[in-house]
Amino acid sequence: MSPRIEKIAVVGSGAVGGYYGARLAQHGLDVHFLVRSDFDAVSQNGWKIQSLDGDFNLSPGQMHVYRTADEMPAVDLVIVALKTTSNDQFPALIGPLLAEKTAILTLQNGLGNEEQLAALFGPGRVLGGLAFTCINRIGPGQIHHMDHGLIRLGEFNGGRSPRALEIADLFNRSQIHCQVLEDLRYGRWEKLVWNVPFNGLGAALDLSTDRLIANDAGTALVSELMAEILATAKSIGVELPLELIALKIEQTRSMGPYKTSMQIDRQYRRAMEIEAIIAKPLAIARKQAVTTPLLEFLYRSLIVADK
Amino acid sequence: MSPRIEKIAVVGSGAVGGYYGARLAQHGLDVHFLVRSDFDAVSQNGWKIQSLDGDFNLSPGQMHVYRTADEMPAVDLVIVALKTTSNDQFPALIGPLLAEKTAILTLQNGLGNEEQLAALFGPGRVLGGLAFTCINRIGPGQIHHMDHGLIRLGEFNGGRSPRALEIADLFNRSQIHCQVLEDLRYGRWEKLVWNVPFNGLGAALDLSTDRLIANDAGTALVSELMAEILATAKSIGVELPLELIALKIEQTRSMGPYKTSMQIDRQYRRAMEIEAIIAKPLAIARKQAVTTPLLEFLYRSLIVADK
Repeated sequence: MSPRIEKIAVVGSGAVGGYYGARLAQHGLDVHFLVRSDFDAVSQNGWKIQSLDGDFNLSPGQMHVYRTADEMPAVDLVIVALKTTSNDQFPALIGPLLAEKTAILTLQNGLGNEEQLAALFGPGRVLGGLAFTCINRIGPGQIHHMDHGLIRLGEFNGGRSPRALEIADLFNRSQIHCQVLEDLRYGRWEKLVWNVPFNGLGAALDLSTDRLIANDAGTALVSELMAEILATAKSIGVELPLELIALKIEQTRSMGPYKTSMQIDRQYRRAMEIEAIIAKPLAIARKQAVTTPLLEFLYRSLIVADK
Repeated sequence: MSPRIEKIAVVGSGAVGGYYGARLAQHGLDVHFLVRSDFDAVSQNGWKIQSLDGDFNLSPGQMHVYRTADEMPAVDLVIVALKTTSNDQFPALIGPLLAEKTAILTLQNGLGNEEQLAALFGPGRVLGGLAFTCINRIGPGQIHHMDHGLIRLGEFNGGRSPRALEIADLFNRSQIHCQVLEDLRYGRWEKLVWNVPFNGLGAALDLSTDRLIANDAGTALVSELMAEILATAKSIGVELPLELIALKIEQTRSMGPYKTSMQIDRQYRRAMEIEAIIAKPLAIARKQAVTTPLLEFLYRSLIVADK
């Protein structure tokens, strides 16, 4: 039996880290937040969460807030919700939090995050999770959870471990719908099917999700880009059903207008997650000789549009 | 010998029509402006022109300003500077201005304008001109001429006619550098080599001219798009030199930041000139079986980004 998870660190307390961490703390878990840019607001006023699953505030007394990882205790579980453009800071931000059995769960976007964590801290510690959700930071310490919320998670090494099941249970008990994946790669690529067009094309063309699929031309462009991702996934043995394309577009249509994190990053001229979401899948497509003309053009456009 | 050109109508008095018409009036020509959206400002205060060739104001007493073509006299020369998205209004806006010998010179962007004018009013009347210039409307009746200014013009039917030479002479005497082309198509396609990347990609990615060529990735993307236009032109017998690509990029670099009309149209959610600048060249490329993947993607992106 796996050790009980009681103490949790959240590294990277933007919209995703803030929301999920606050939900866990709201339900009685011992959550330690590493908060960098919004430290003053969160340490003084806590989190203010607007959520379709119920609004709530988390006061500073219900959690622990830190400015640097060095001040933090070792924990049972580290949840990584950093922007992938900060992955070069993994050693300093995660290293101090690790005890012998500490698990690391990355909820980050795109490809390569589990591999980087495994290389630094050992593959046995690492789990990956996909957050299928619409969450925006609307101010310091203020988060708007607009739609969905499901997390699918799995072991980097594969299999349904007791540890993965325990983490999923913690989430489900904290109003976060969570499923365990036998093969994490299915979740990764399923999420990429959405992220590549809606984050990537949305940022390149500066269009919110609803505008991208407002006419037939846009729906066709999004669908073809999704098909390129499905073909790339298939080339490495991850077979996702073609029906996923229509399903993802329908789900997105039901969301209403949504600006993805990459579109917002572009509008504020902050670094975009081009590497994890676009370049890594493209590198696999090239290596596997899968023809992905739209992904190629999208990558080139984003490099030009980058700050 | 051709009849003397004394009376000139400018149809479509935005930045291009306003600037060139005001220069002609400033130098003593009898210019009649059809001004729709800015009628009140121009009829009351005239034109205020900031120009690298010298600032000047043109008072209402130095010209004629009309709200509709029906109020205007027949003229010797009609200069068409409408946005191409208004080309369906040619009969009502140009018809009333024509006497037996009236010439029509279109300074509009893209392909197909001369053909539409020729079909309506007879090919013998029609000339085309390319304005290689940076001009923005900065307010009602206010124009900023930022860089360049050359006009290349030619007969729709080809050849260096006395009429084309006379119009060029009028322009050159009015501080507008002007050259006559033996084959108008060379000018049209030369201008497209610039317009497709800088108007098209600039509008799709919402980037000004300087940002499009700020890094190697952007310069490569712009260059390849230009190469696709050169290949398309070549397929119909218009051979432009490959060196044009580096030359156009160098000229653009010297201009500094510039928002093209298509980028501005997109930002204000006005109709973009997708048809004339992007769709028409793409239709020719498809018909001639020229491979233009970037132009294809650009066209599709613009349709999605259109208002």
